[in-house]
Amino acid sequence: MTEPSRDLLETFDNPYSDRDYVVETVCPEFTSMCPKTGQPDFGTLTISYVADQKCYELKALKFYLQQYRNHGAFYEDVTNRILDDLVATLAPRWMSIVAEYTPRGGLSTSVTVEFEGSTDDAAD
Amino acid sequence: MTEPSRDLLETFDNPYSDRDYVVETVCPEFTSMCPKTGQPDFGTLTISYVADQKCYELKALKFYLQQYRNHGAFYEDVTNRILDDLVATLAPRWMSIVAEYTPRGGLSTSVTVEFEGSTDDAAD
Amino acid sequence: MTEPSRDLLETFDNPYSDRDYVVETVCPEFTSMCPKTGQPDFGTLTISYVADQKCYELKALKFYLQQYRNHGAFYEDVTNRILDDLVATLAPRWMSIVAEYTPRGGLSTSVTVEFEGSTDDAAD
Amino acid sequence: MTEPSRDLLETFDNPYSDRDYVVETVCPEFTSMCPKTGQPDFGTLTISYVADQKCYELKALKFYLQQYRNHGAFYEDVTNRILDDLVATLAPRWMSIVAEYTPRGGLSTSVTVEFEGSTDDAAD
Amino acid sequence: MTEPSRDLLETFDNPYSDRDYVVETVCPEFTSMCPKTGQPDFGTLTISYVADQKCYELKALKFYLQQYRNHGAFYEDVTNRILDDLVATLAPRWMSIVAEYTPRGGLSTSVTVEFEGSTDDAAD
Amino acid sequence: MTEPSRDLLETFDNPYSDRDYVVETVCPEFTSMCPKTGQPDFGTLTISYVADQKCYELKALKFYLQQYRNHGAFYEDVTNRILDDLVATLAPRWMSIVAEYTPRGGLSTSVTVEFEGSTDDAAD
Amino acid sequence: MTEPSRDLLETFDNPYSDRDYVVETVCPEFTSMCPKTGQPDFGTLTISYVADQKCYELKALKFYLQQYRNHGAFYEDVTNRILDDLVATLAPRWMSIVAEYTPRGGLSTSVTVEFEGSTDDAAD
Amino acid sequence: MTEPSRDLLETFDNPYSDRDYVVETVCPEFTSMCPKTGQPDFGTLTISYVADQKCYELKALKFYLQQYRNHGAFYEDVTNRILDDLVATLAPRWMSIVAEYTPRGGLSTSVTVEFEGSTDDAAD
Amino acid sequence: MTEPSRDLLETFDNPYSDRDYVVETVCPEFTSMCPKTGQPDFGTLTISYVADQKCYELKALKFYLQQYRNHGAFYEDVTNRILDDLVATLAPRWMSIVAEYTPRGGLSTSVTVEFEGSTDDAAD
Amino acid sequence: MTEPSRDLLETFDNPYSDRDYVVETVCPEFTSMCPKTGQPDFGTLTISYVADQKCYELKALKFYLQQYRNHGAFYEDVTNRILDDLVATLAPRWMSIVAEYTPRGGLSTSVTVEFEGSTDDAAD
Repeated sequence: MTEPSRDLLETFDNPYSDRDYVVETVCPEFTSMCPKTGQPDFGTLTISYVADQKCYELKALKFYLQQYRNHGAFYEDVTNRILDDLVATLAPRWMSIVAEYTPRGGLSTSVTVEFEGSTDDAAD
Repeated sequence: MTEPSRDLLETFDNPYSDRDYVVETVCPEFTSMCPKTGQPDFGTLTISYVADQKCYELKALKFYLQQYRNHGAFYEDVTNRILDDLVATLAPRWMSIVAEYTPRGGLSTSVTVEFEGSTDDAAD
Repeated sequence: MTEPSRDLLETFDNPYSDRDYVVETVCPEFTSMCPKTGQPDFGTLTISYVADQKCYELKALKFYLQQYRNHGAFYEDVTNRILDDLVATLAPRWMSIVAEYTPRGGLSTSVTVEFEGSTDDAAD
Repeated sequence: MTEPSRDLLETFDNPYSDRDYVVETVCPEFTSMCPKTGQPDFGTLTISYVADQKCYELKALKFYLQQYRNHGAFYEDVTNRILDDLVATLAPRWMSIVAEYTPRGGLSTSVTVEFEGSTDDAAD
Repeated sequence: MTEPSRDLLETFDNPYSDRDYVVETVCPEFTSMCPKTGQPDFGTLTISYVADQKCYELKALKFYLQQYRNHGAFYEDVTNRILDDLVATLAPRWMSIVAEYTPRGGLSTSVTVEFEGSTDDAAD
Repeated sequence: MTEPSRDLLETFDNPYSDRDYVVETVCPEFTSMCPKTGQPDFGTLTISYVADQKCYELKALKFYLQQYRNHGAFYEDVTNRILDDLVATLAPRWMSIVAEYTPRGGLSTSVTVEFEGSTDDAAD
Repeated sequence: MTEPSRDLLETFDNPYSDRDYVVETVCPEFTSMCPKTGQPDFGTLTISYVADQKCYELKALKFYLQQYRNHGAFYEDVTNRILDDLVATLAPRWMSIVAEYTPRGGLSTSVTVEFEGSTDDAAD
Repeated sequence: MTEPSRDLLETFDNPYSDRDYVVETVCPEFTSMCPKTGQPDFGTLTISYVADQKCYELKALKFYLQQYRNHGAFYEDVTNRILDDLVATLAPRWMSIVAEYTPRGGLSTSVTVEFEGSTDDAAD
Repeated sequence: MTEPSRDLLETFDNPYSDRDYVVETVCPEFTSMCPKTGQPDFGTLTISYVADQKCYELKALKFYLQQYRNHGAFYEDVTNRILDDLVATLAPRWMSIVAEYTPRGGLSTSVTVEFEGSTDDAAD
Repeated sequence: MTEPSRDLLETFDNPYSDRDYVVETVCPEFTSMCPKTGQPDFGTLTISYVADQKCYELKALKFYLQQYRNHGAFYEDVTNRILDDLVATLAPRWMSIVAEYTPRGGLSTSVTVEFEGSTDDAAD
């Protein structure tokens, strides 16, 4: 099985790049595999960002996320990796990802990662 | 099909222009067309603003928003455009629009835009 | 039909005037008339304040608000007017009113007004 | 503007026609036009049925329902008409449609229609 | 002040009178006066019916219900009276009204009335 | 401390005694004392009934229920007793009381009692 | 570790044994051990019954249920066993137990058991 | 890719086969593939049954359901097929499966299937 | 009837006095008497504090609050008084009390009081 | 019975130690014993932290928390102790624990503790 690749992400030009505004996408259908038990994990990803020059295209984002369906990855790894892939592709002014996983063994875990670019003077 | 025009917006004099106060209007019945697929999109707009000299008239706002019913526009475009139209018409001290769209392909997207005028010394 | 009068408001001495504390009263049964259409409007008022020397008496507040039942007034007007009446009567250290109206034509509107007195050094 | 046509509906063979089972489809994005005011109406359709020989195809159902987007029709008419179209196309053992419309003038209306075929001896 | 009159109700021909189907209208903005205390009462009316030959027109229903705004009536009276007015005007196959009033003195009261016509053989 | 007495209950003539209809009163502020521990109990009473010739007056019902404030009684006793008092006073066609008590020791208890009169032929 | 014993249950005389009424007790703090994995299970028990001559005492019921805290038992076993113990002790006219367990491995399980005595002629 | 097989299901002896009782298992993490688009579908399965001689083992049920993860199947097919597999393996007295799928194209679909065995005289 | 006394409060030594941490206790069963009408009031108290050297004992807190059961006091008075009693007994680094009362005459009132000690350098 | 030991906790290397990100684990199945009454307590723990070099392993965390099942400890003690154990084992940049216990005697209590490390310059 091949590794998930950021090459599947596609972008389009930010139509209002002179203004800081937030786009938030909620994906309640994220699933990956636990590398330890081989069992599927399920979670909801909430991706928020302030675009600089590029916005992500939603259908391509969906295909990118589906690559994790049969990919083994720990919670902490996969959330940080998705942030890295999106930041590398979009170079956003700011981005945050919250990943909330369903309970396992009576414990529910979420991971929140954030990329702080340069929103402060972005629109100047 | 003609373009949505800000000319449909109507205003009345702010009856308490010496005070900063917030008016918020929620429109859960916003709909436009996806320019790519030709399919209808649905969303809830939440418009908040601090009026300076002018307030928007609600019935005219409704007619203005209904212009998007058969108009093709991406999420990011339409939200920013409505902000531009309202700011141009009202010259408010502050305004924000949150547009929350219903899920497509398992992904739900919202767009939050903000206009920062001069609320700080507005009532001075 | 006579105008609503602030004379119906009654006060009692703030029993703990050396301390800043917040009293909040929610009135989900506020109703007035639209001056344009002659149709009734319905809303929920949330009044919050930090009393200085006087607190409002609740039964009198109820009678004061009932004066608007058959009175024509726009959302922005009536909310600001009630704030003015209460501030004039109580001289509070701080007060805020949030008026949330039920939907008309698919649009729901709320108005938030605030009076900033001198809470910072109020208890000094 | 042409009339909505049941010809857009498509069916496939019921894969388990020897068993009575219920399929329910919820469409929270239904919209039509009020023939009196020319204003858009919005509602949620819930279609439930026990198929006999044919099931509806979901994408075609979506296109069928989108025909009402710019079509003028009263609540009672449109709900009964959709039932008639689906019953004529599917000849189901049983079908029910609940249409819940958003509030207008402070009043919310729903319409519930039902087609009773022959579920009792259907699987005999 | 004049008595509420059923003459304000208007009807239109049931477009599908050969089928029993249910129309339900929710009015969360009903208000009347307590004849004992002179204080306003507030409630939510839910009217459900199976039309025979006539359906009520919604705007006229709204005006009919607004007649109670300044009319004194006990909960039990007003609910039964509205049922009587609607039954006399529509001659429905079946009708039910649920009136849920907001709390007074820590007690919340609802009244449920029903008219049973002849739904069983209605569509025969 | 005196025993709670049904003499505090007051009635008025059922204005629509030729029709079976349901009146429901919810009292979320019921409190009594545990006879074993001397500690206060708290619960919500929901009283529903079909009146025959008499309806209960709400303010008197409130005073009747307040008699239990400092009265010691087990859950099962007090619920059945209130039913007996109301049935004896109103002679209703049907009555039910649901008493839901707040948790004690991690256990929440409710008691549901019912009086079945003669609703079937009541309106004949 | 000793087996849970029904001897810890205590009863008192049903104060209204000539009337069928329902007592429901919700225990959201039930816990036992999985006999296979040795891991704790957690669930909410809802016990409902119509008493004949005896009611259970709540504090003793709590102690009876706490016996399962370190006792290994499958979901199906423990729910049926508690029903058997309560029926043997109370000889109720009717009883039902619903046990809803928290998710394990992404699956949530509940067990519903019922004892049908002789409620029909119980109060005759 | 191999077909999902009912051989992965495991059973254990019903410990209380002389009593009809209901076991319900909710699986909010069911996922399969749309055979038309190749896109993943997500849903919640609720399986309820009255066991006769055999109960399903939960961990084996989980593995059985995971077989559909990369298997293409329409909603109607997969729900009926799972019912057939479970009925063939358990020979239950009664079983029902409700499958609720997440929205696609603005439409949410659920499928409810039921197997009626012989619960009536089951415990005789 | 005697006045509520802070002497019923009991304390124990803060086991972690070198760390600022928050303890919050919610009492949904608070009740007192209206000194004007003699009618009972009901509310929910939420007490939060950062202990310095002493923590309150929960059972004693319960008995302290029960003293208000038959004690007449206005909302503003009783909330401030309880704060004063707790601050005098515990000498906390910070404390806040929110008292939310149930609706009277259609108006719901809450009172929020706060004691600001010296949390900033508390743990230094 | 032995004391709960932090030795059961296990860690793994933080895979993204150059970035501050938050991991939150919710445990709704925490239970311990009241040292005063010997009765079980139940609560929900929410543990949040910013890892420095080490992350906790979830299964080991579960076993660590299960040690409190038959261990007597007051609310304030156990929450602070768990924080101390986790901080000693992980040396996190920041950590917070919120423990919300179920109601006892009508009072619900929560305890919130926080460890402030050096998040500010952590990722520099």
